[in-house]
Amino acid sequence: MTHGTLDVAWTPAELEPSEAARQALVVIDVIRATTCITAALEAGARRVVPAPDDAEARRLHDLEPPGSALLCGEQGGLPPEGYDLGNSPGEYRPETVGGRVLVFATSNGTPAMGRATRGLSLRLASFRNLSAVARALTAELSTAGPEAGVTLVCAGRAGRVSMDDAWCAGHLVRGVSGSHAGLRLTDGARAALELGERLGDPDPERLAETAAGRALVQIGLDRDLRACARVDDCSSVPLWEGGAFVRGGG
Amino acid sequence: MTHGTLDVAWTPAELEPSEAARQALVVIDVIRATTCITAALEAGARRVVPAPDDAEARRLHDLEPPGSALLCGEQGGLPPEGYDLGNSPGEYRPETVGGRVLVFATSNGTPAMGRATRGLSLRLASFRNLSAVARALTAELSTAGPEAGVTLVCAGRAGRVSMDDAWCAGHLVRGVSGSHAGLRLTDGARAALELGERLGDPDPERLAETAAGRALVQIGLDRDLRACARVDDCSSVPLWEGGAFVRGGG
Repeated sequence: MTHGTLDVAWTPAELEPSEAARQALVVIDVIRATTCITAALEAGARRVVPAPDDAEARRLHDLEPPGSALLCGEQGGLPPEGYDLGNSPGEYRPETVGGRVLVFATSNGTPAMGRATRGLSLRLASFRNLSAVARALTAELSTAGPEAGVTLVCAGRAGRVSMDDAWCAGHLVRGVSGSHAGLRLTDGARAALELGERLGDPDPERLAETAAGRALVQIGLDRDLRACARVDDCSSVPLWEGGAFVRGGG
Repeated sequence: MTHGTLDVAWTPAELEPSEAARQALVVIDVIRATTCITAALEAGARRVVPAPDDAEARRLHDLEPPGSALLCGEQGGLPPEGYDLGNSPGEYRPETVGGRVLVFATSNGTPAMGRATRGLSLRLASFRNLSAVARALTAELSTAGPEAGVTLVCAGRAGRVSMDDAWCAGHLVRGVSGSHAGLRLTDGARAALELGERLGDPDPERLAETAAGRALVQIGLDRDLRACARVDDCSSVPLWEGGAFVRGGG
C-alpha cells in the first residue's frame, strides 16, 4: 500500500513555496501550453525552455546558437511578431520541431511552470498524455516514503480557476489514486476528482464553453480545441531537467 | 432577462481588490463561521463584528460598553481562554445571544470577510440560508445594470480550496442562475455548479471527509457537522452594514 498525499492546486497561488519543495509537481494548462509542449516533445523537439514572458523568451532565444532555437508561444492568444511558431498543438510536427530547441512563452502556462521548478520533480500534463503522466507519478510514489506528495498545479487564467485545467486534474487524480489505495487526497484533489467524474471525457464543444476556449473561438482557433480534447495519443511526459523540459516517459 | 456575471472565487486570493469593488460579494465558510453567524443572527443577535484574529477581537470587544458584547469564535477549532462562546452553531440560541453584540474571530472565515468588505455589498452564506441568500442576490441583480456582478468567495482553509465551501457555492450558483436566464457564469462558477450537482445535498458523513470536517472530528465536535449540513432552516442573511453584520432577509 502506498502512503503519501495527492493534492490539486486550483490556481498557482495555492502552491506554497515551502510546501512545493517537498512535492512532485505537475503543471496543467490544457488550453494550450501543456498540450502544445507535450505535442512538441512527442514530435521530437530536443528540449523546451519555458519563459515567463515575451521579453524573457527573446532573451533566452538569443542565448542559443544562431539558427538553432525556435521562438514559440503566444501573447493574447497569438504569436508576437518574430515568433517562429504559435501556441497551436497542430504546429508542432516532426518536420517543424524535430531535434530543435524551443523557447516558449505563453500568458498563463509558462509563468506557472516557472513557479513550479522548485518542486522535487516537475512534469507537464494535458489530456493528451494523461495515462503516461499517471504512470510516471505512480512510479515516483511507489519508491517514495510516507511523506511523499504530489501536487497537480492548474495554471488557470490570470490567477483564476480554469475549468479545463481542473477537469484534466480530476482525471489525473482518478488515474493516480486508482493505483494507490493508501493515497490521501486533499480537498482540492477530491473536488477535482468529483468534477472530472461529473464532466466525463473531454470534448471540444464543452472546452469551447470555458473562458480559455471562448477566447480561442474569438480569434478563430476553434480547431485547437479538438487537439486539446484528444486523450492519451501521446506517450511523452515533459520532464524538467537541466533548465528545460525534455521528453520523459510514463 | 438579467445580464451580469456570477463568479466563484475558490479561495479568497482569487478575489482581485480592483474587481471586488464592483461586485456584490458573498463569503462562504460552511465549517463553521458563516453557518455560526447565520445561526447567531437568526437567534436574535443584534450585530456581529468580524475580527481577523484573536488579538483584534479582544481589542474590538473592549471598545464595546462593558458587559454588552460577547467574545466568540475559535483558534485551532476551540475558543481561546476568556471567550464567551466558541464556533459551534448550537451555541447560538436566543437565550445566549438575543439582543447581544458579538465580536467574532475564526481562523479562516472572519479573515476572508475582512477582505470582502470592499465589495458593493457583502453577505454571508451557508447551507442553512441558501435559499434566502439566493433570493437576496436575485433581487440585487434584477435592479442592477448589465455590468453587475456577484462573486461568491469561498473562505477555504489556510489559503487552500475547501470542499465544503465550493460545494455550498455550487448550490448557490444553481439557486441564483436558475432565476436569471441571461447570467454569465465564470469558469469558477461553472466548476462549482458541476461539483454541487455531483455531490447533491450536503450530509454530515460527507462533510466529515473534508479537511475542515476531519479537524472537527479530531477535537470531538462531530455534532457541529450535522448543524452545518442542515439546509434552509434559516431565513436570515447576514448583511454587512455600518461595520458589522446585521440580519438581512432573502
